[in-house]
Amino acid sequence: MQAALAEAALAEAADEVPIGAVVVLEEQIIGRGHNRPVATSDPTAHAEIQAVRHAAQQFKNYRLVNAALYTTVEPCLMCMGALVYARVKRLVFGCFDPKAGAAGSLYNIALDTRLNHRLDVTSGVCEEECRMLLQRFFREKRFRHKKEPTD
Amino acid sequence: MQAALAEAALAEAADEVPIGAVVVLEEQIIGRGHNRPVATSDPTAHAEIQAVRHAAQQFKNYRLVNAALYTTVEPCLMCMGALVYARVKRLVFGCFDPKAGAAGSLYNIALDTRLNHRLDVTSGVCEEECRMLLQRFFREKRFRHKKEPTD
Repeated sequence: MQAALAEAALAEAADEVPIGAVVVLEEQIIGRGHNRPVATSDPTAHAEIQAVRHAAQQFKNYRLVNAALYTTVEPCLMCMGALVYARVKRLVFGCFDPKAGAAGSLYNIALDTRLNHRLDVTSGVCEEECRMLLQRFFREKRFRHKKEPTD
Repeated sequence: MQAALAEAALAEAADEVPIGAVVVLEEQIIGRGHNRPVATSDPTAHAEIQAVRHAAQQFKNYRLVNAALYTTVEPCLMCMGALVYARVKRLVFGCFDPKAGAAGSLYNIALDTRLNHRLDVTSGVCEEECRMLLQRFFREKRFRHKKEPTD
């Protein structure tokens, strides 16, 4: 999770919502990603999608069987769908996202027996650190917005 | 939808599940995509994701407000999530996908009032043509599999 937090810090430095993720296989990090939809003009460029793409391309296989994905925040629907398609075995995340989370908050995709793959999920790892990063980002954004009002 | 079907034919020619999609804004096609997870070693390379990424990159904006996405098959969870994030206004699709569809079959993401965006959905456009393409692909795949058994 420390590696995922380091990725989140890269997103924060680029003024993107600070979320980071890594893909781990046999105790090795095989993919890294951080949130960067604005910089890349790509609405799918969430940290988890970036990490899964990176890992799959390194691995030369679109299936990441036996891999684990570590992410600082509960994944959204899009990212949970990607984890199902990639056959990721295990998901570990930091804090819940009550507004868009799909691994327990709004939906629980990991446990849906109608889909052709399920994941083991561990939540709350470095939870406070992951949440603080997000809270600080949005607090500063609101502060800047107040100081520089736009039409 | 004919342009989306042409994209699906490109997937079929590359031995990928034949699904195609286009993004339309002001009667112009601004993004095209077809299913290619195997060729690209990318589990997220569904037709809809490819088309949305293509459009957003051309448009230099990760939000495709007022755009419509045409796809030959009901999108999955991952793709519906991407359409929500891209703020796509309208979804038009061909045939339903009872096993993985998230615009009416397993889930109805377009109408979820808890998410921060909703889409207008039209289904059943060129339905038979879209379904036949899929059925032919899987029939031929089973036939080849029978002829060439592997361990």
